[in-house]
Amino acid sequence: MFKINENYLKLPGSYLFSTIGKKVKEFTEANPDKKIIRLGIGDVTLPLAPAVIDALHSAVDDMAKKETFKGYAPDLGYEFLRSAIAENDFKSRGVTIAIDEIFVSDGAKSDSSNIQEIFDANCKIAVCDPVYPVYVDSNVMAGRTGEYIADTGKWTNVIYMPCIKENNFAPELPKEQPDIIYLCFPNNPTGSTITKDALQKWVDYANQVGAVIIYDAAYEAYISEENVPHTIYECDGAKTCAIEIRSYSKNAGFTGTRLGFTVVPKDLKCGDVMLNSLWARRHGTKFNGAPYIMQAAGASIYTAEGKKQTMDQIAYYMNNAKVIREGLQAAGYSVSGGVNAPYIWLETPKGMTSWEFFDYLLNKANVVGTPGSGFGPSGEGYFRLTSFGTYESTLEAIERINKL
Amino acid sequence: MFKINENYLKLPGSYLFSTIGKKVKEFTEANPDKKIIRLGIGDVTLPLAPAVIDALHSAVDDMAKKETFKGYAPDLGYEFLRSAIAENDFKSRGVTIAIDEIFVSDGAKSDSSNIQEIFDANCKIAVCDPVYPVYVDSNVMAGRTGEYIADTGKWTNVIYMPCIKENNFAPELPKEQPDIIYLCFPNNPTGSTITKDALQKWVDYANQVGAVIIYDAAYEAYISEENVPHTIYECDGAKTCAIEIRSYSKNAGFTGTRLGFTVVPKDLKCGDVMLNSLWARRHGTKFNGAPYIMQAAGASIYTAEGKKQTMDQIAYYMNNAKVIREGLQAAGYSVSGGVNAPYIWLETPKGMTSWEFFDYLLNKANVVGTPGSGFGPSGEGYFRLTSFGTYESTLEAIERINKL
Repeated sequence: MFKINENYLKLPGSYLFSTIGKKVKEFTEANPDKKIIRLGIGDVTLPLAPAVIDALHSAVDDMAKKETFKGYAPDLGYEFLRSAIAENDFKSRGVTIAIDEIFVSDGAKSDSSNIQEIFDANCKIAVCDPVYPVYVDSNVMAGRTGEYIADTGKWTNVIYMPCIKENNFAPELPKEQPDIIYLCFPNNPTGSTITKDALQKWVDYANQVGAVIIYDAAYEAYISEENVPHTIYECDGAKTCAIEIRSYSKNAGFTGTRLGFTVVPKDLKCGDVMLNSLWARRHGTKFNGAPYIMQAAGASIYTAEGKKQTMDQIAYYMNNAKVIREGLQAAGYSVSGGVNAPYIWLETPKGMTSWEFFDYLLNKANVVGTPGSGFGPSGEGYFRLTSFGTYESTLEAIERINKL
Repeated sequence: MFKINENYLKLPGSYLFSTIGKKVKEFTEANPDKKIIRLGIGDVTLPLAPAVIDALHSAVDDMAKKETFKGYAPDLGYEFLRSAIAENDFKSRGVTIAIDEIFVSDGAKSDSSNIQEIFDANCKIAVCDPVYPVYVDSNVMAGRTGEYIADTGKWTNVIYMPCIKENNFAPELPKEQPDIIYLCFPNNPTGSTITKDALQKWVDYANQVGAVIIYDAAYEAYISEENVPHTIYECDGAKTCAIEIRSYSKNAGFTGTRLGFTVVPKDLKCGDVMLNSLWARRHGTKFNGAPYIMQAAGASIYTAEGKKQTMDQIAYYMNNAKVIREGLQAAGYSVSGGVNAPYIWLETPKGMTSWEFFDYLLNKANVVGTPGSGFGPSGEGYFRLTSFGTYESTLEAIERINKL
């Protein structure tokens, strides 16, 4: 008699954004006349850039002709894309990454949830609190997290690193020693970043205790300040302790197009075994490559036009971030993020919990945000707004909130 | 100190097709004047059908405009595609599948390797021998297979069901009771099929002993004979014991385009728990949907033009299969498959092992095939040729082989 993976049953409730979706659906059905503004889920709204569209059409044409048709892609991704990544994302920042250290995928969500597979079932993970739910949930499914304690909102076998106002939303080195440390900067959900010197301390710590850092840099393109690292490999020694995950979802609007990549340096080893070889084996066995059409689109972002057009999109969203941040500050809210990230993190007013504030905003201003507590216990009392709406709707949302 | 998933180190050698790729590369470099004909890997060569190309261009245009731009896709896939699947792949065969039993993905390789995650780590798997390597390898990575015995080419904790000439390449019910049974019909690599009555026996057996059948129907479109089931749900009771995996790779040439789907019926339960809910949770947590552009392309296959054009492609490949099958038979080879499947399975001549015959064909005829032993110990002494080449090269390959 077959049995199921009981770890799945430990997951409380459904995935955060599904719950929000259901609540919004219920409200919309009950109030068909209200115009909802969605600043909740981190989904983009601008269409793909013209350079990307041209590359997509051109790649589709390639698929129409026998001479240029592409079947299975190379396991790690097309060399034309991996070369562009090595050159533009790393070499331009003084970092040398070989193209066989780059693994092209269908996006950062897949990679950040699958990467745990190459580690032992008994590895102990440390996460920021609040945190993007996928890191923890994927480890729950793999049985690494112990039991969920509903009262505290915590798993018994996870090391939580609170990121709260008191520490400027930057995690401190954990007292208990972890095996795998998930870091995300610019951070989702808080929008915070840390300096290169601060990140260097994490790299030194990981190398010292023999931990691996899973570094999620999906929001790298939004960095506007000088002293904030764009890749963890800007830090000395990162190649012996860090895996970096990148996405095209937010820097080029690929949320529905699906493309990303992960860097696993060959210097990152457990004894004699290169993690690069393990991840290569996983890619070759359990994945069949990102579509040629999407990889061609990804490469177009690195052309002169592609760079300019996607930078314009980022500037558009960051202007929204400014509208939200400054608007809420002017109305007396305590706000952080939104300077190097598309997320604004605010303290809920009047002693409301995160979900109370969610319902309050939905009902009174018809604005959808994300409850901070959905990202972990230390997110309670906070709320996330994203800058991925249109300028007009962002402006209107802030006006509505400020009238409450 | 972090540790790796030691199960990865148990995997012998590298992935079959990587090994073949390396051997061919070495031969080509040593013999740059020889024209290699590749009938090894199951990759298609015909360009995408015009209806698919039109749908791709049109979907790209949707992504270029604010009004029609698509961000994150629904977790399970767009309803337009799932409705077309339910209607054309199932209802047309008298089978009712609800659209929330259909999960759109980036392809059958991902699904067939990921599906084991929702089962307990101690479930025992049964596989055909020979078998598509992904079923076993993904379970090796998950720690379900015990140890690899190099002498026998078998894992200590896997139930092997030999598919050999003596049983007409159809597995017999296993003596030892499995929890999860992988079946693939039309079969990769042998090209064999079983009748509806024979498949019904498997369904009855699975329901009786409480096993789940993972039914890989990736080659369903190649079925030409009447009494061969196109979906396992044609059998009574399959909804309480079977998951079906489908692919667009071979019926529409999507090997480099990436789209597939998996059916998990809501009647398939372990106690009170629906496997449909577990797979939905995995989809929502560890995958972010197939690209809108690809889902639109997938839907185009179900239009009148799309059906006609993809059927023409299948007819083209099946004519190649006929060329291979009849050509080799005429030359005295013992051949099976190629009637309901794009694969031809032949006995290696002159007492050669599968890899000896691989080297022999590569060196003497410059033709690449796949050694049967790469698919499992009972594949020793057999060899797979695929019909996915061009007509001209297929003809030439058979001429060359017959001159040996």
